[in-house]
Amino acid sequence: MPSSIRKIINDPVYGFITIDSPLIYRIMSHPYYQRLRRIQQMAFAGLVYPGAVHTRLHHSLGAYHLMCSALNTLKSKGIEITADEETAAKIAILLHDSGHGPFSHALENILIPGVHHEKISLLIMKVLNEEMEGQLELAIQIFTNNYSKSFLYQLVSGQLDVDRMDYLTRDSFFTGVSEGVIGYDRIIKMLTVHNNQLVVEEKGIYSIEKFLVARRLMYWQVYLHKTVLCAEKMLVKIIERAKELVQKNRSLPSGSQIVDFFIASPSAGDGFHSYLDKFMQLDDYDVMTAIKNWQHHPDKILSILCHGLVERRLLKVMLQAAPFSAGMLEELKARISREKGIPPEDAHYLVIEGMSVNTTYDPAEERINILFKNGSVKDISQVDNALIHHNLSAPVKKFYICYINT
Amino acid sequence: MPSSIRKIINDPVYGFITIDSPLIYRIMSHPYYQRLRRIQQMAFAGLVYPGAVHTRLHHSLGAYHLMCSALNTLKSKGIEITADEETAAKIAILLHDSGHGPFSHALENILIPGVHHEKISLLIMKVLNEEMEGQLELAIQIFTNNYSKSFLYQLVSGQLDVDRMDYLTRDSFFTGVSEGVIGYDRIIKMLTVHNNQLVVEEKGIYSIEKFLVARRLMYWQVYLHKTVLCAEKMLVKIIERAKELVQKNRSLPSGSQIVDFFIASPSAGDGFHSYLDKFMQLDDYDVMTAIKNWQHHPDKILSILCHGLVERRLLKVMLQAAPFSAGMLEELKARISREKGIPPEDAHYLVIEGMSVNTTYDPAEERINILFKNGSVKDISQVDNALIHHNLSAPVKKFYICYINT
Amino acid sequence: MPSSIRKIINDPVYGFITIDSPLIYRIMSHPYYQRLRRIQQMAFAGLVYPGAVHTRLHHSLGAYHLMCSALNTLKSKGIEITADEETAAKIAILLHDSGHGPFSHALENILIPGVHHEKISLLIMKVLNEEMEGQLELAIQIFTNNYSKSFLYQLVSGQLDVDRMDYLTRDSFFTGVSEGVIGYDRIIKMLTVHNNQLVVEEKGIYSIEKFLVARRLMYWQVYLHKTVLCAEKMLVKIIERAKELVQKNRSLPSGSQIVDFFIASPSAGDGFHSYLDKFMQLDDYDVMTAIKNWQHHPDKILSILCHGLVERRLLKVMLQAAPFSAGMLEELKARISREKGIPPEDAHYLVIEGMSVNTTYDPAEERINILFKNGSVKDISQVDNALIHHNLSAPVKKFYICYINT
Amino acid sequence: MPSSIRKIINDPVYGFITIDSPLIYRIMSHPYYQRLRRIQQMAFAGLVYPGAVHTRLHHSLGAYHLMCSALNTLKSKGIEITADEETAAKIAILLHDSGHGPFSHALENILIPGVHHEKISLLIMKVLNEEMEGQLELAIQIFTNNYSKSFLYQLVSGQLDVDRMDYLTRDSFFTGVSEGVIGYDRIIKMLTVHNNQLVVEEKGIYSIEKFLVARRLMYWQVYLHKTVLCAEKMLVKIIERAKELVQKNRSLPSGSQIVDFFIASPSAGDGFHSYLDKFMQLDDYDVMTAIKNWQHHPDKILSILCHGLVERRLLKVMLQAAPFSAGMLEELKARISREKGIPPEDAHYLVIEGMSVNTTYDPAEERINILFKNGSVKDISQVDNALIHHNLSAPVKKFYICYINT
Repeated sequence: MPSSIRKIINDPVYGFITIDSPLIYRIMSHPYYQRLRRIQQMAFAGLVYPGAVHTRLHHSLGAYHLMCSALNTLKSKGIEITADEETAAKIAILLHDSGHGPFSHALENILIPGVHHEKISLLIMKVLNEEMEGQLELAIQIFTNNYSKSFLYQLVSGQLDVDRMDYLTRDSFFTGVSEGVIGYDRIIKMLTVHNNQLVVEEKGIYSIEKFLVARRLMYWQVYLHKTVLCAEKMLVKIIERAKELVQKNRSLPSGSQIVDFFIASPSAGDGFHSYLDKFMQLDDYDVMTAIKNWQHHPDKILSILCHGLVERRLLKVMLQAAPFSAGMLEELKARISREKGIPPEDAHYLVIEGMSVNTTYDPAEERINILFKNGSVKDISQVDNALIHHNLSAPVKKFYICYINT
Repeated sequence: MPSSIRKIINDPVYGFITIDSPLIYRIMSHPYYQRLRRIQQMAFAGLVYPGAVHTRLHHSLGAYHLMCSALNTLKSKGIEITADEETAAKIAILLHDSGHGPFSHALENILIPGVHHEKISLLIMKVLNEEMEGQLELAIQIFTNNYSKSFLYQLVSGQLDVDRMDYLTRDSFFTGVSEGVIGYDRIIKMLTVHNNQLVVEEKGIYSIEKFLVARRLMYWQVYLHKTVLCAEKMLVKIIERAKELVQKNRSLPSGSQIVDFFIASPSAGDGFHSYLDKFMQLDDYDVMTAIKNWQHHPDKILSILCHGLVERRLLKVMLQAAPFSAGMLEELKARISREKGIPPEDAHYLVIEGMSVNTTYDPAEERINILFKNGSVKDISQVDNALIHHNLSAPVKKFYICYINT
Repeated sequence: MPSSIRKIINDPVYGFITIDSPLIYRIMSHPYYQRLRRIQQMAFAGLVYPGAVHTRLHHSLGAYHLMCSALNTLKSKGIEITADEETAAKIAILLHDSGHGPFSHALENILIPGVHHEKISLLIMKVLNEEMEGQLELAIQIFTNNYSKSFLYQLVSGQLDVDRMDYLTRDSFFTGVSEGVIGYDRIIKMLTVHNNQLVVEEKGIYSIEKFLVARRLMYWQVYLHKTVLCAEKMLVKIIERAKELVQKNRSLPSGSQIVDFFIASPSAGDGFHSYLDKFMQLDDYDVMTAIKNWQHHPDKILSILCHGLVERRLLKVMLQAAPFSAGMLEELKARISREKGIPPEDAHYLVIEGMSVNTTYDPAEERINILFKNGSVKDISQVDNALIHHNLSAPVKKFYICYINT
Repeated sequence: MPSSIRKIINDPVYGFITIDSPLIYRIMSHPYYQRLRRIQQMAFAGLVYPGAVHTRLHHSLGAYHLMCSALNTLKSKGIEITADEETAAKIAILLHDSGHGPFSHALENILIPGVHHEKISLLIMKVLNEEMEGQLELAIQIFTNNYSKSFLYQLVSGQLDVDRMDYLTRDSFFTGVSEGVIGYDRIIKMLTVHNNQLVVEEKGIYSIEKFLVARRLMYWQVYLHKTVLCAEKMLVKIIERAKELVQKNRSLPSGSQIVDFFIASPSAGDGFHSYLDKFMQLDDYDVMTAIKNWQHHPDKILSILCHGLVERRLLKVMLQAAPFSAGMLEELKARISREKGIPPEDAHYLVIEGMSVNTTYDPAEERINILFKNGSVKDISQVDNALIHHNLSAPVKKFYICYINT
């Protein structure tokens, strides 16, 4: 892209997203970035909310757009940010999630145990940095919080980072859960920097409350929807079963060489960088094709789970506030093992326990700082008449069982 | 689903979609319908408009919703429609596009020559009709225009059918091309029936004009966008090449047994019904996985095209109002054949000609009838001071070449 | 309107509002209802939010629309509601606010002391009932909670009535405070009736939380915005001053005979019904014209206040969490009295104290009942992990002084 | 306002409008500008579209916002625009409509014959320029097209000026006629400057077509809606009757001294500048109060018309494509004169003829220039396959009669 040309991308959420840096355009054109087109942002949420099939690439573009907006706001308030810092912060957010694999959170630590997606994102930045003659140096410093202006790091990864603001906005948009909408534009206009930290101006308090309440709603209503959880658990069990079968030397062609490779590989751990290029070829299409092919595999468990996921005939789900009794679980497993004709030690594949947990706002972990007109700074949970109060800092747990209908 | 329970689906476009018929719910739950989750509505448009990754299932639900709305409007105007006819019309629209294969229009007639998607949709309805004890009989009559109340057929498949209204609305929504938005709710409120035909009340004229102008805009700006066309042409050439290689007995494992089957099969023609079950397993995931796998195939042409599509490094496109000269094309092919080291007879894989064509409104083919207060009926192109005039009935053609950069 | 004709009104908030009852159309056409066109819904909020100039008529139409929607939902859930009850509930909501005078809340009890707007609304219903041969009988019973199906009353005037749902939705729409948006459509879909009471289904909990948080935000950010409060206080002082001058026999032509009448009249009290017809001629235009005319009145105080309001040169406002000290207030009044040359006993016209108060949710006064799947019913503040907790039941007070800049 | 402080105004249409120039803030605070709060943008359109009660101040702010946006686009494309020119263009658009009187177009040339609102806008700029030490000099040059960079004038007042873009956008938003929506953001992104003229880039063609079609729709569906026209005609006749009565020395107190003054004044003409200050006190409130007061005037004609307008009991309207015959009109007047007991020479007050006219696009008067990639420039009506063609350049006329029901 010649340096003088601007590229404009239509976005149903924000209208238009503008790219005006050749370096950023080069990064966006890289196959490592384009791969994000083939990974859905919300994994199986589309099974419940049919509109929620947007991609990680789209989310990444959105977060980039909000970063542009936030940097403009801060500059207009007199915060000094150089052109290089701007570009670096934009690159950092653009690549912040590039390390996600297919069905991201669901498969994290399952397909490739012991490797967190942020570690991979950093690895990707380093590889691109080499390819692009060190031009990502500053972005890496910001991403790893090794740069002096910490507020730039906080915009990438903090309590009010543009990542969260975009995914809440975008996910509520595409699911059609309009109540999850946050006032991202107002929050951004209320951002400022105080003692090198990102803070929110006093008159933004209600917008922050609204943000936290919308987040709470999105978690319980969407991200932790029981049907979505169930599908994710089924996927996890499919991969576990596949790995088990491979270890038992069963033939298990998935149709994707990359899936074959990772199913057969031992834990990656520190040696992961040698797998990076392979990982960069892995996406939703490989995993879904594997599942489609495994529908016809002779292993009964694998075939049941794969069929169920493809045809959206999911396991049944029971959900409650208290843990299920061990006795009840054992009984259920015994019955299903008997009726389905599978060994008792495999019953856990078709009777899956799980717990979902969410915290509305934990001041011990999160810090959303409000800057008052008198210059003092308080956490959002400490302001007068706070909606966000101590009681909401405890994690709320919900217990569930997914089991096959007999 | 017990007959008394209503199911509500969130839709970012219309808010909520309601299902209150057990039969319709049963159809929606069928694997043949669920497969539409795995076929994107707009094929490669997502390469240009990143939000445009919505599925055929989503479009089908939307068209169903507009059908509900249109039937309610007509009933409120005193048009007699029985409960059975309502259900049947809803089923007909729900399944109208169920015969689409992966990358629909792009691959139609390519992967399985000689079988149009509407024929497959009808086949699907017949199969479901058998499975469901003849409950789709009336839907089939409506879909094939063999039912006395022709206006029901016109709602499914006419100039102002709910299919078009939904895809224009939905595609403009997800692409973010807000100018493509049509006033579907107003058009629906203006619909009525006159002499058993679907017509539009006089005061809906401007909404119809707007509908046609928005359609024109969507065609040129989105559906026929040169980058989208180029990606589609590359896909077509990939399938053609794969078929050629198979016929030459080259090994070409795609990773998907279904793709392997159709690549190797001869034209289907009338015997297609025996393939239906196989076809119902085919979706975007199979095709995309094939392309991903073929990136590493030793055939240079196949590998170039597959790499390009996966990494979004597309062929270059030239677009113009007049056809390209034969001489210029031959010269280009010769040069590329030489520089890329491929036989001249294969150059057409990397120098692809094409023509896109669109007609704003052709009164000879389309009939949008306006009902005037005095009881007369005129085609939209015949009303006084029409925006939609004779000149717009000629098809507009654009010619393009997609060729590899050397 | 012939009984078979439907009238459709465009509404930017809900799309289309449909009227299909001749009786309702007749009520809407009555001058008593049309008068609501000339009373702004949000009084002086337009001084801060320029879009907030929508009328009481528009709000009333919106509440009517939500009532239609709520009644349809309840009927679809098997709650028995007759056609007459439907029409009556719609009439009740249509007229619920018809008793509001100009600048509603600000002038309530000021211009006509001792008469609450709901009393006037009831009076209006009774007058119309006579004019329309008793056809409003049932509406009056519902409005006064004298009808057996109490849930109908609760839809008109309860914690989740369609009045509140519309004004929060509409006011946030027109102010552009998008964070005040509530999920009215989802809340309505979650409504049901249990033991003759309006309740919300369990899965609507988060929508209710969101509703209460949005309400809290709208109060502090919009309804109790200090500039809006200040303008309202100035208006109150203008009317008080005018009444005082009239009592001192000063000539004070307002330009509106109706304003002249009410300024000169003693407290109305129980005799108000004899003034009804006069009151039905009073609207924002009379009051604003009076203020515009009084700008040139020789009384310095009246002229200062009127000029300020017309030219949007408002008093200065100080706002704080604690009451202002009496000493500070006296000092301020003394100084202003001196500098402006007005008698000390009149200083209160230009140094106005006030307090704004709001409660997020008071379970003692409000009851938003949640119906659980197991059949139990709990107040929203009593459900597990409630966002809406005891601490939020205390009224929050803010104290302010509006005073003239010297 | 200290120069470093930014003011942000919520706008339901564009989100936030930002003011960051102390001079612009000072102009906005001036009573001449604040008066625009009391003049509705769409006069009587609210009688049909209840949401359409937004003010001229709101439109002016919106046009200012689009101007900011357009200037930023042009600068980003390398067009040189200095900071002073930017401020001046913003001021010019802010005040472009400041000369409008109450019920603007309807009363133009009626209340004060011979003075066009643009002349008054210029007068206002000159007065403010004096008050503000010559700081509006450049704005005046741009507004009067006396500045070298003509494209700045064209942004204020041309075929694609931000005035039109805002009013079409805003009016369709507030009426709820969503089909009138134009892609203002895309059009603005497509603007550029060629030979000192404002032009649109080639790829903006479809957006321009859409703009012209939306305008066409808004004219016929909203601005020239027969009920709106009827109310405006009634208002005109009220003012004419009032002037006639005054000339006959009838007492006619309106309640507004300003209305009294203009009703009694002879044509203003060139001496208008001496009336400016009086005119700056005139707004919708004065006129509406006059009408309300005149309802009770002994003159039957005046009272009938005023009553009708206040209570929305409008005259009946007949509308047709051809002129009404003189004979039919005379007969109607004669009958109404007889039945209503008014002299035949006054019948024209209750039988009002009129004609509405609109042209979709007249290339002779308008010039929307498209800049092609090859550097050529063509009018939108001259491009290939134009939707906007010669036939649409002829004005379309509709004839109507408003008459009292007897």
